[in-house]
Amino acid sequence: MFIAMNRFKIAIGHENDFIEMWKSRESHLDSVPGFKAFHLLQGSSDENCTLFASHSVWESADSFNAWTQSDAFRKAHAHASGAKDIYLGPPQFEGFEAVI
Amino acid sequence: MFIAMNRFKIAIGHENDFIEMWKSRESHLDSVPGFKAFHLLQGSSDENCTLFASHSVWESADSFNAWTQSDAFRKAHAHASGAKDIYLGPPQFEGFEAVI
Repeated sequence: MFIAMNRFKIAIGHENDFIEMWKSRESHLDSVPGFKAFHLLQGSSDENCTLFASHSVWESADSFNAWTQSDAFRKAHAHASGAKDIYLGPPQFEGFEAVI
Repeated sequence: MFIAMNRFKIAIGHENDFIEMWKSRESHLDSVPGFKAFHLLQGSSDENCTLFASHSVWESADSFNAWTQSDAFRKAHAHASGAKDIYLGPPQFEGFEAVI
């Protein structure tokens, strides 16, 4: 099992804008080989921003990497960025292999 | 759905020690109300350390918080730390609420 997370720092007050952007996004993930589940996660807030993480579960790192090279990936990210001023810095990708 | 993650920086060369410590741990989680799944995740490495994250899925933040106040939690952490010199700094907790 492989978990792909992208961490986003969203300016305070723009949390709902960010969530709605993800809700309206067409990810095309359900038809991707090896894809198991997707969630958008909301973490803690400080005085400047709220941490969010996209969280997708895959059968393997190979299936995730194949998706990042696919047309489905390109389509999913074609209109993904939204209003730039809600982001405090670029997203930070982290990939994890389940070892237990 | 709530996801509780604890991030650990493990000194290079001690990855297997850390994984074996978790494999031998009696977590007592299966009997905890609201608990859904546990994985130990291995992330990327740099020249000093490898990132790991414990990753547990719960029905709600309330069920996770109730567990942290329980005897089961105390038992699970009684012998959890292991050899101190494998850790580069303290673990970093992050809790996430699934919003999609």
